[in-house]
Amino acid sequence: MSDNNPLIVEVTRGDMVESRHRGHCVVAYRTGASVHVWGDGDLLIYPRSAIKPLQALALIETGAADACRLSATELALASASHSATPGHVDAVASWLERLGLSESNLECAGHDPKCWDADKALICAQTAPGPLHNNCSGKHAGFLATALHMGEPTKGYSGSDHPVQQRLAAIMEEMGGVDLAASSSGIDGCGIPVIGMPLTALALALACMVDGRDLDATRAAACARIIAAMTANPNMIAGPGRFDTIAMTAGCGAFVVKAGAEGVYAGIVPGLGLGVALKIADGAKRAAEVAMAAVLEHLGVLEQMPETPVLNAAQAKVGVIRMGPDWPG
Amino acid sequence: MSDNNPLIVEVTRGDMVESRHRGHCVVAYRTGASVHVWGDGDLLIYPRSAIKPLQALALIETGAADACRLSATELALASASHSATPGHVDAVASWLERLGLSESNLECAGHDPKCWDADKALICAQTAPGPLHNNCSGKHAGFLATALHMGEPTKGYSGSDHPVQQRLAAIMEEMGGVDLAASSSGIDGCGIPVIGMPLTALALALACMVDGRDLDATRAAACARIIAAMTANPNMIAGPGRFDTIAMTAGCGAFVVKAGAEGVYAGIVPGLGLGVALKIADGAKRAAEVAMAAVLEHLGVLEQMPETPVLNAAQAKVGVIRMGPDWPG
Repeated sequence: MSDNNPLIVEVTRGDMVESRHRGHCVVAYRTGASVHVWGDGDLLIYPRSAIKPLQALALIETGAADACRLSATELALASASHSATPGHVDAVASWLERLGLSESNLECAGHDPKCWDADKALICAQTAPGPLHNNCSGKHAGFLATALHMGEPTKGYSGSDHPVQQRLAAIMEEMGGVDLAASSSGIDGCGIPVIGMPLTALALALACMVDGRDLDATRAAACARIIAAMTANPNMIAGPGRFDTIAMTAGCGAFVVKAGAEGVYAGIVPGLGLGVALKIADGAKRAAEVAMAAVLEHLGVLEQMPETPVLNAAQAKVGVIRMGPDWPG
Repeated sequence: MSDNNPLIVEVTRGDMVESRHRGHCVVAYRTGASVHVWGDGDLLIYPRSAIKPLQALALIETGAADACRLSATELALASASHSATPGHVDAVASWLERLGLSESNLECAGHDPKCWDADKALICAQTAPGPLHNNCSGKHAGFLATALHMGEPTKGYSGSDHPVQQRLAAIMEEMGGVDLAASSSGIDGCGIPVIGMPLTALALALACMVDGRDLDATRAAACARIIAAMTANPNMIAGPGRFDTIAMTAGCGAFVVKAGAEGVYAGIVPGLGLGVALKIADGAKRAAEVAMAAVLEHLGVLEQMPETPVLNAAQAKVGVIRMGPDWPG
């Protein structure tokens, strides 16, 4: 397919396409040169959880990560949308304990664990999920660690006027080369601010993480440390059976891939110096995963992923989710 | 908005539209005259569960419904995608028992109940959902009742070559005024065949259910009986908290609305003699519900439904799902 056309993801059933998703995607160098633009690169998006790797920069740059001797696992969790497996929850809990804090300091509300066994255990114990189970609890632990280290109030760290959030906004502006002061904003699933930005700016910000020529040494080192932590711990980034974990495990360090809600994906390809920003217009996760896999395959950093089947109640394959006919892959 | 443009459903967060869905919709009389076509009326779709009211015609026309003295509740369940509340499951079980059959005769596999209390009860009892919990179990009970009454084998009733399924295909052709012999086909979630058809043909078929001038008396009476059963039993059609039940309860008999998977909706408006066929291109349920409500409001048969909020983990409203700016409603 030619660039500029949107990505099309098809959902088939039998011998017909039943549903279609449209996606926008920018693959760019840190110079701003785009390798690919499918669809509208100027599209304003909320990057959601896809920018957790960028948000984790503040944790390192402030010195907080070193001050509390964060492990690579903990850095990965700060950049993760974890499944709330016992391993995820315990790791965040013990990190908070080391800070002298607890689950009650987390300002993210609970939601059902993405790990079905963990979810089932809570349901059967008639226990509501708590903030530790929120897929963002590692990111929030990082916010708390940063606030503590900087001598800032821990209460209210999720508010847009708190220095923790202001640092995140500044990072996105610096890395994306964009002024976000007048941007649209809202509240994310976990309660922190989201700021609208062009898809292209997100791709640039991600590319800067692996091409630090315009960055100071501290930031360049922080970027490298986050990418190393994420690629070494794909199980921490999402969880069993989830796309990010499966793809990054298959990639063996060749890339970072990070999902955001509403069909957003971030990709970082160190070996090529590329950032990948993707948004499915309608917000569908099923399409975002198939499209992101296709883009990574197209860039030559991911072997062909197994086909994504459509299953019926009897678990029989009745269709497939795939790229549209014009996709070159 | 002018007709021919697709319907747009927006998902906002804060002060920005975060995701957009495109929908196609035909509102038509049984003559074929269209009141509205938004998007592509020729779009080929699988109507999925939206045509259960049409599929239930065979149950009545063969005489099976009278032979087994079906109640209006049971006729509604034959046309339903129920939630597997105890009321739903018990009603289908007792219907099967009356036929001398049981759950083991149902050829739909089990899936998690759409009723959360029922789902939770199964999870905590470590019991897998069975065919009775399938949202289509009432429809399948109707298939079995029809096969028994006609002296056809009950085993294999879900296969495309079984007379039960061939009657359904014939009904769709007759009511939609369309030849489906060469149409695309596949397997539905519950294991029965699905046949592709143009959106317009679906709208016509639905309109015929309330404007019987071209139908023989038997079919016209069967249509009226199904619509009466459905409008009298909105709790049977879906379940607590679900759109079809809420909207039909609010509508007090002014319309039938029936969801299908992958963003399909069927509407039947007796007072206006109209059929409504709607498909969200990407298959999103959240958009299909908002769009169907908007169309019914536009036709003057549904009072404004409560706004559909986007909630974050803390259950705070952070956005809204609404029709796009060009929608006239």
